[in-house]
Amino acid sequence: MQRGKFITIDGVEGSGKSTQIDFICDYLVTKKINVILTREPGGTELGEKIRTLLLSTDIQSIHGDTELLLLFAARNEHIRTKIIPSLEKGDWVLSDRFTDASYAYQGGGRGLSIERITQLEKWVLQDFTPDVTLLLDVSVALGMSRVESRGRKDRIELETNDFFKRVRNSYIERSKQFPKRIKLIDASKTLEQTAQQIKIILQVL
Amino acid sequence: MQRGKFITIDGVEGSGKSTQIDFICDYLVTKKINVILTREPGGTELGEKIRTLLLSTDIQSIHGDTELLLLFAARNEHIRTKIIPSLEKGDWVLSDRFTDASYAYQGGGRGLSIERITQLEKWVLQDFTPDVTLLLDVSVALGMSRVESRGRKDRIELETNDFFKRVRNSYIERSKQFPKRIKLIDASKTLEQTAQQIKIILQVL
Ligand SMILES: Nc1ncnc2c1ncn2[C@@H]1O[C@H](COP(=O)(O)OP(=O)(O)OP(=O)(O)O)[C@@H](O)[C@H]1O
Ligand SMILES: Nc1ncnc2c1ncn2[C@@H]1O[C@H](COP(=O)(O)OP(=O)(O)OP(=O)(O)O)[C@@H](O)[C@H]1O
Ligand SMILES: [Mg+2]
Ligand SMILES: [Mg+2]
Repeated sequence: MQRGKFITIDGVEGSGKSTQIDFICDYLVTKKINVILTREPGGTELGEKIRTLLLSTDIQSIHGDTELLLLFAARNEHIRTKIIPSLEKGDWVLSDRFTDASYAYQGGGRGLSIERITQLEKWVLQDFTPDVTLLLDVSVALGMSRVESRGRKDRIELETNDFFKRVRNSYIERSKQFPKRIKLIDASKTLEQTAQQIKIILQVL
Repeated sequence: MQRGKFITIDGVEGSGKSTQIDFICDYLVTKKINVILTREPGGTELGEKIRTLLLSTDIQSIHGDTELLLLFAARNEHIRTKIIPSLEKGDWVLSDRFTDASYAYQGGGRGLSIERITQLEKWVLQDFTPDVTLLLDVSVALGMSRVESRGRKDRIELETNDFFKRVRNSYIERSKQFPKRIKLIDASKTLEQTAQQIKIILQVL
């Protein structure tokens, strides 16, 4: 049995992750690939409960290190009980956000040191990593304008414009650091033009 | 302002932690010491929610590393937002369980490696440590017999006898490794005799 591929999709709010996921699933189905769609934070029963804690606006503030530990707790459960078992069965796994988001939001956004995030990543993931990460890049203004009609904001969405600019810059930095794995996609284009860029990457996976 | 002292009390179920905490609080009050009573997992609003996740029997199984990450997430919040601020104000802090419990339950009980627990402890606590830890030691049989009349068991209390024997042995091992900080107390004695052993330790703190 050939091991499946692990694809992650990341980027700021409104970059079009959920939209492009639909396209990717359709595309993989035409290739007769069985794909498990999942997300972070979350993806497991316990992980979704941790997601609720993390995004709830009931708790006014959470220490940055606590936030990161909770994210990695959910991620560990996700990897051990869902992602790796699926890949080993030969399924492909497509995750809406993954570890790069911790570097972008907790590192860039909250200012936690990259070195400390890396230590925790190594503790949890050892050398496990996505086969490819699709980084949907849009300006914060464009992303925000796309999602502004949505309802009540969660604890992260309530952050400042400057926070999200640091998040975007961290994502871009990371794509330069890992150019083979992280594919920077211009997501300011139309749906179809963005999907076309993704299709080219998937074709050679 | 003199920094307060941080006292933790640990031991298997039914060793008498909650009972002796009452005695310790009374004793410190007679010494005109302001004491903050807290517990782990928990101690903060977020930490208590994490405790609920950890102890709930709704979730059938949690990966050992996930459990440890959740415990340290709650612990980080506890240390940063409650324990250290209280100590800096000059208050004493008394916690019903602390990091030693992670070594005993997740290390001894679940078999996680001491080395990996230490890495996470260093990541979260750096060199922060209790001033003294009162380790109430009883046999698993005696501890269990004391609490057997209690109602429905939580996810940890449902573990096997062998699990709790490994927990007890890990506690004892740890007290040998850190003899200056961890005081082994024979908690199979009467309430008064056990309290007397604790009083002797507190008098020289
Ligand atoms: N290329 C695009 N051009 C114009 N609008 C788009 C494009 N991609 C997505 N949208 C629209 O923008 C909105 C946000 O897209 P989507 O929900 O896919 O973003 P997201 O990255 O999943 O956001 P979040 O991070 O909040 O989950 C949707 O209404 C979607 O229809
Ligand atoms: N030295 C003792 N001798 C006899 N009974 C005791 C003694 N200490 C405590 N008990 C009784 O044993 C029971 C368990 O004690 P306690 O609740 O203090 O244990 P605990 O360590 O806090 O347990 P848990 O880990 O479940 O919180 C109580 O009913 C208490 O009254
Ligand atoms: Mg989305
Ligand atoms: Mg108790």
